Amino acid sequence: MLVEFTIVPIGLGSSIGDQLAEVLKIIDASGMPYKVNPMGTVVEGEWEEVMNLIRKCHKTVMKTGERAITTISIDDRKGKLGRIDAKVKSVERRIGKSLKK
Amino acid sequence: MLVEFTIVPIGLGSSIGDQLAEVLKIIDASGMPYKVNPMGTVVEGEWEEVMNLIRKCHKTVMKTGERAITTISIDDRKGKLGRIDAKVKSVERRIGKSLKK
Amino acid sequence: MLVEFTIVPIGLGSSIGDQLAEVLKIIDASGMPYKVNPMGTVVEGEWEEVMNLIRKCHKTVMKTGERAITTISIDDRKGKLGRIDAKVKSVERRIGKSLKK
Amino acid sequence: MLVEFTIVPIGLGSSIGDQLAEVLKIIDASGMPYKVNPMGTVVEGEWEEVMNLIRKCHKTVMKTGERAITTISIDDRKGKLGRIDAKVKSVERRIGKSLKK
Repeated sequence: MLVEFTIVPIGLGSSIGDQLAEVLKIIDASGMPYKVNPMGTVVEGEWEEVMNLIRKCHKTVMKTGERAITTISIDDRKGKLGRIDAKVKSVERRIGKSLKK
Repeated sequence: MLVEFTIVPIGLGSSIGDQLAEVLKIIDASGMPYKVNPMGTVVEGEWEEVMNLIRKCHKTVMKTGERAITTISIDDRKGKLGRIDAKVKSVERRIGKSLKK
Repeated sequence: MLVEFTIVPIGLGSSIGDQLAEVLKIIDASGMPYKVNPMGTVVEGEWEEVMNLIRKCHKTVMKTGERAITTISIDDRKGKLGRIDAKVKSVERRIGKSLKK
Repeated sequence: MLVEFTIVPIGLGSSIGDQLAEVLKIIDASGMPYKVNPMGTVVEGEWEEVMNLIRKCHKTVMKTGERAITTISIDDRKGKLGRIDAKVKSVERRIGKSLKK
């Protein structure tokens, strides 16, 4: 399944780049397929491995802060793998044009 | 932590009430504190019990469908329990007025 | 359409109840059908009136803060009105049981 | 402000690529800065221009369908422009490593 998630530490000031850097280090080291974007990170995997990764990231942010808002969006489609690359390519094929990524 | 989640089955037509009824049965039978609203359900609990509940609901919807979009919002605040009732009450106290629920 | 929204001020500390009280005052005064829950507020209306309300709430929070995260979920279904009450009732009818709200 | 949005048509079957292609054509033609990812599209702009774009996309999907779920996440930070590129770069600088995009 494809999963996008975002963790926002609350109460640490309006600049949260240090916490996000810790989170991205964990994601990058996980070996799971991922793509980072300006609003979150998309990962692809089975329920358990994805949720374990998100839990680890969330717990890391909660170590240094009092509160965090974590948002998770799951797109689960039977029998489809490699969608982290295929979904945007499929749309580009339909449009006949390369999109900004 | 407080967690709101919503499961939308895709590809089963525009009326998805039967699937949502199955999901609400599971939530109601779980014994966990919950509040249902027109856009989702809020539950309160620790990471593992909440995520196990959501996984069970999501898997139930995937049994009858090909695809589902599940959205999860977590508000985790250290040392705060009973927030499923306290959060709205705290806002009502500040306003000095009862709100529609 | 049914719309749930949540505004989280960033950088004002981990207690954000004062800002949320301002937001709920605006929603309550709007006269639009709404229901508040521990994770957000659901309103029902047409695109323009709903978005004008959310914009007003968001701008009010940005007056006192440097940063805010606002999340909006829209469930738009042709020819259906009064869904802010009807959606949960329809699920309760299917289950044959009253749910916690 | 930075805004990610996703539109999911409900009731048109589990393959929704044709509708998403229509949406991406509108975004690409808008001239606004955007980045598409496997779970949504991030755009940067002022409230009115962003919401007009999302409204146009949402209304286009509702022309061919009975129901759509549209999700919008706004990250609004005073006095910051060009964040659609700068946010990820800032995290990469902190980590000292290029991330997958």
